[in-house]
Amino acid sequence: MKRPVTIKDIAKMLGISKSTVSRAIRGSEEINPETKKRIMDLVEELDYQPNAFARSLLKHRSNTIGVVIPAIENSFFANLISGVQHVAHSKGYNVMICQTNDSFDREVSDIRTLCRHQVDGIILSLSSETKSFDHLQSVIDKDIAFVMADRTTHKIEAPRILVNDRDGAYNATKHLIENGYRNIIHLAGPESLEIANLRAQGFSDAMEEAGSTDIDSKIFRCPFREEKARELTLELLKDGVKFDAVFAASDKIAVGAMMAIKEAGLYIPDDVALVGFTDLPMAKLLTPSLTTIQQPAQEMGRKAAELLLESIEDKESHDSSDYVMTTRLIQRESTKSKVGKA
Amino acid sequence: MKRPVTIKDIAKMLGISKSTVSRAIRGSEEINPETKKRIMDLVEELDYQPNAFARSLLKHRSNTIGVVIPAIENSFFANLISGVQHVAHSKGYNVMICQTNDSFDREVSDIRTLCRHQVDGIILSLSSETKSFDHLQSVIDKDIAFVMADRTTHKIEAPRILVNDRDGAYNATKHLIENGYRNIIHLAGPESLEIANLRAQGFSDAMEEAGSTDIDSKIFRCPFREEKARELTLELLKDGVKFDAVFAASDKIAVGAMMAIKEAGLYIPDDVALVGFTDLPMAKLLTPSLTTIQQPAQEMGRKAAELLLESIEDKESHDSSDYVMTTRLIQRESTKSKVGKA
Repeated sequence: MKRPVTIKDIAKMLGISKSTVSRAIRGSEEINPETKKRIMDLVEELDYQPNAFARSLLKHRSNTIGVVIPAIENSFFANLISGVQHVAHSKGYNVMICQTNDSFDREVSDIRTLCRHQVDGIILSLSSETKSFDHLQSVIDKDIAFVMADRTTHKIEAPRILVNDRDGAYNATKHLIENGYRNIIHLAGPESLEIANLRAQGFSDAMEEAGSTDIDSKIFRCPFREEKARELTLELLKDGVKFDAVFAASDKIAVGAMMAIKEAGLYIPDDVALVGFTDLPMAKLLTPSLTTIQQPAQEMGRKAAELLLESIEDKESHDSSDYVMTTRLIQRESTKSKVGKA
Repeated sequence: MKRPVTIKDIAKMLGISKSTVSRAIRGSEEINPETKKRIMDLVEELDYQPNAFARSLLKHRSNTIGVVIPAIENSFFANLISGVQHVAHSKGYNVMICQTNDSFDREVSDIRTLCRHQVDGIILSLSSETKSFDHLQSVIDKDIAFVMADRTTHKIEAPRILVNDRDGAYNATKHLIENGYRNIIHLAGPESLEIANLRAQGFSDAMEEAGSTDIDSKIFRCPFREEKARELTLELLKDGVKFDAVFAASDKIAVGAMMAIKEAGLYIPDDVALVGFTDLPMAKLLTPSLTTIQQPAQEMGRKAAELLLESIEDKESHDSSDYVMTTRLIQRESTKSKVGKA
């Protein structure tokens, strides 16, 4: 059997270095055009077949994608990553993950690191601090594939994987209204995040439909963090704010609220009902178990990876659509019907 | 103020390309030695100060470290990573994370990816499938800094960050014995993991001390996964295995056991007491809350990063010591004293 032609053979025949041949094949601009032509002519003549790694170099690919998320200890993002990995691994791509801890500076730095390490594409969920988007535009400008998932922005042209946050929040609030709760408050996420505002919108829409007025005074902003949610709820209770139900913009916020309500000596759902958003694994383990809006995290991750790989393999496709997935209400012990049976 | 000298200036003065100057400064072997000498002489004469990125190139550094862990949705690893990031970020290093899903093939692939993307060092916690270690030896052979944390092996010469697993397990078992439990079983982790075997050892030691015999028949192996632990516990109950207490080798296993015990209509701690290992955030939120052995995950991550960065900055230091951190027993509602008060 004939031995396959190597870069070394080509270099020897032309009396130049291996690295020059390799650079020419990779399409480097640093090489004399005449030399480049001689190399590429010989490559064609000898029917040189680069190996897999060389092929990926030829296509300028590293077969690695990056995922940038706010917090890995949040099971929602862990599940999203699991969906991304499932698709990426099945197609021979490796996945590197960066955690921003919800810091804008960290996000900028992580994005730069991934670009410098030449990933083929990046999937991002925004930090709650992020208000400017130049670092993301620069990813797109570098022709690196880019997809946003869950926490996204409309200020950048890129595909977005979302759930219908407004509808999910509307259904959560409506569930409380239909079960006879009237003094419902909303512990909303930070105003910098579109998802938080969409969930607040869903709350407002359902409340307005039920004839409620002065709805803004029933919305309290809070970071997506247990401890902060606990402190806020304790403060509301201390200040004498009246409520018989809480719709929390995330399960993390709901857990914080649950702690505070128990600490204040009140019972869930008898004194205060509680609905979360996400369906973290702990939601069903809590006592009482938490009624919540389930987000299809794995499926979101899979879809994000599929779109990213499509964009990597076909640079021409410039998709910037929204992919909106549906949520569903999971009723558990933290809500019950207060409506008198006839 | 005088403008600082740049690579461009040097290239212009010598009539050569910028990339040649840059390669010479980086110590490339591909350049004519005479050219290299001319460049380096001029660099010295002009007192050229490379910027931060160029400096890192000079030292052949990417200022990025990789962390390879079995599962990010496990809060123990999430906390460990948070400790790593704290130290790494404070010293200007970026962190890229890879998740093996406890798969050996994935671990090999992740290690290769990080090496190919030229990280300066790697922190690893072994997958439970890993039984050969060539891929780790190759990291060390490539002169990439390497540290193991939590799930480690003695078959590779590298620093190891551990907790005293045997002592932790011994204390957990002793806590049950001292509170009057006699039929204690141990849901142990997989035999491939040293930490699982050390914890089983601690259990055996405490049981033996208390005069128990046939201890091996009280140890049941189980993956570190809720669902598998639930199935195993249901099976033990169905098979009529008698026990009044369970020491689980991890909180994940404990949660699975808790589900099974509740499903079987038994009460914790009245019918069966339960102790875990790790202190995941959910441990205190369970009903009953879980008595467990707390591992200092953050501190382990910080120590791992400190050792890794030392090794990166000083290649001469070839440390392969064990750093053993202490655990502590956190008593909660899943255990109580059965000993009659005098």
